[in-house]
Amino acid sequence: MLGPGDDAAVVAAPDGRVVASTDLLVEGRHFRRDWSTANDVGHKAAARGMSDIAAMGAVPTALLVGFATPGTLPVQWVQDLVSGLREECGAIGAAVVGGDVTAADGITVAVTALGDLQQREPVTLGGARVGDVVAVCGRLGWAAAGFAVLGRGFRSPVHVVNAHRRPEPPYADGPGAAVLGATAMTDVSDGLVADLGHLADASGVRIEVRSAALDVPAKLREVGAALNVDPLTWVLTGGDDYALAATFPRGTDLPAQWRIVGAVIEGDGVRVDGRRWPQGGHEHFR
Amino acid sequence: MLGPGDDAAVVAAPDGRVVASTDLLVEGRHFRRDWSTANDVGHKAAARGMSDIAAMGAVPTALLVGFATPGTLPVQWVQDLVSGLREECGAIGAAVVGGDVTAADGITVAVTALGDLQQREPVTLGGARVGDVVAVCGRLGWAAAGFAVLGRGFRSPVHVVNAHRRPEPPYADGPGAAVLGATAMTDVSDGLVADLGHLADASGVRIEVRSAALDVPAKLREVGAALNVDPLTWVLTGGDDYALAATFPRGTDLPAQWRIVGAVIEGDGVRVDGRRWPQGGHEHFR
Repeated sequence: MLGPGDDAAVVAAPDGRVVASTDLLVEGRHFRRDWSTANDVGHKAAARGMSDIAAMGAVPTALLVGFATPGTLPVQWVQDLVSGLREECGAIGAAVVGGDVTAADGITVAVTALGDLQQREPVTLGGARVGDVVAVCGRLGWAAAGFAVLGRGFRSPVHVVNAHRRPEPPYADGPGAAVLGATAMTDVSDGLVADLGHLADASGVRIEVRSAALDVPAKLREVGAALNVDPLTWVLTGGDDYALAATFPRGTDLPAQWRIVGAVIEGDGVRVDGRRWPQGGHEHFR
Repeated sequence: MLGPGDDAAVVAAPDGRVVASTDLLVEGRHFRRDWSTANDVGHKAAARGMSDIAAMGAVPTALLVGFATPGTLPVQWVQDLVSGLREECGAIGAAVVGGDVTAADGITVAVTALGDLQQREPVTLGGARVGDVVAVCGRLGWAAAGFAVLGRGFRSPVHVVNAHRRPEPPYADGPGAAVLGATAMTDVSDGLVADLGHLADASGVRIEVRSAALDVPAKLREVGAALNVDPLTWVLTGGDDYALAATFPRGTDLPAQWRIVGAVIEGDGVRVDGRRWPQGGHEHFR
């Protein structure tokens, strides 16, 4: 692998295929400099890209970063961003292999993540079958709760605020799900209902979610009580935790980190407790 | 290969390695909507990415595109951009395989190009050796002349204006140079002197360019005369034509599209006719 500095990077693709995904993070939409440090933004940008790779059942291997910035941005901010990107990658054995920097009026971070399928077939959105169970892995609603707290001018509780600043995607459980025989998978970046909707559409099925099966942790209930918000809303519609949602054949022996929250039936769309959920998606900053 | 719409794309990498490069194009810096059509911008964005791949000696295979846009941008502009991207890719057998769209205050196009080395070693910046010849392939100075024309409020001559709007990188000559035994190579995106400077630095050598060996076409001389600019300046410092510059062992039998313009000697940096060139690089819009 060649490092940054050449015209392009050369990345190992031992499988003979490479998984690739591009995401943009725009200041004021995906992050705010008064809410997140540059290091946080780096972690989050890398997480956003690499969770897409994990959601295909692949192992993230490399990251390329395009960075548009006003000339007034302190150099330290850029250095901290790069540190955050490198730390998030390094923790799972991936590396930042290339990039581009250009001047612009606002900050935009473009992240392309690459990954290796390790000889397995990709787990796409389109493979769910009637009779499968629906399961989730990783945190849901935490980043949304943190976003709500920050939006009301608070800086605590720190657990939910940090969840917004620095997600912790369950990267290894993406390839793990592939090994377990997942039929379809996605990462939850737009919100559970919205992302399961994409999966249901691509698979030509309906997904029934049982809200009682979802974990609504005590911490989220406390924050919800304080802000007068039903915390289930965060769990169902919050993005940016980068949990994984997957379908498995009924009877699959799922490890503890996977929680069965619903089933695949005939029909279309997503139902929560038999009803359409009124809000589809995740709100970014205005 | 999976199309856009899943969490990530799966791209063939038959070589067991993949070449990858990310570039950003920012409105007002890399393009202007009153100077270029959306289709032009699509062609140029794809060219910018894929010329980096060719400059490694690889064949471009796939493009991922991140697109940040104000909500006020006409849908037709976006469709034309995508058409331009697809046309530029399709002409050389590559494909747009994925992307991301987000709201932003300005237009930014982030392009990640992937490519296949076809079992050859990558041609990097760092392999030039004392005694090698320096050769260029493709147009130099045309886009810069077009930029100068547009900057003075003219819309013609059409050849140079179109060169600015829609570069024509010699993609196939990148892998071709690798087969011919190129020791180092780069695409000319910052300007010939600047990009040869990167190559000289990476290789630990000096590059001597003989200006008399450079082709200054009649068309550029005409435009130079009209604008009172020495057209050699455009040839030496103009980027955005995405020519290729490479070093080859002396005596390599180079095909006609390669023009020998200098030599690799001991030392550092770039000299033109034995002197430092005063301006290193390519000016983007302010």
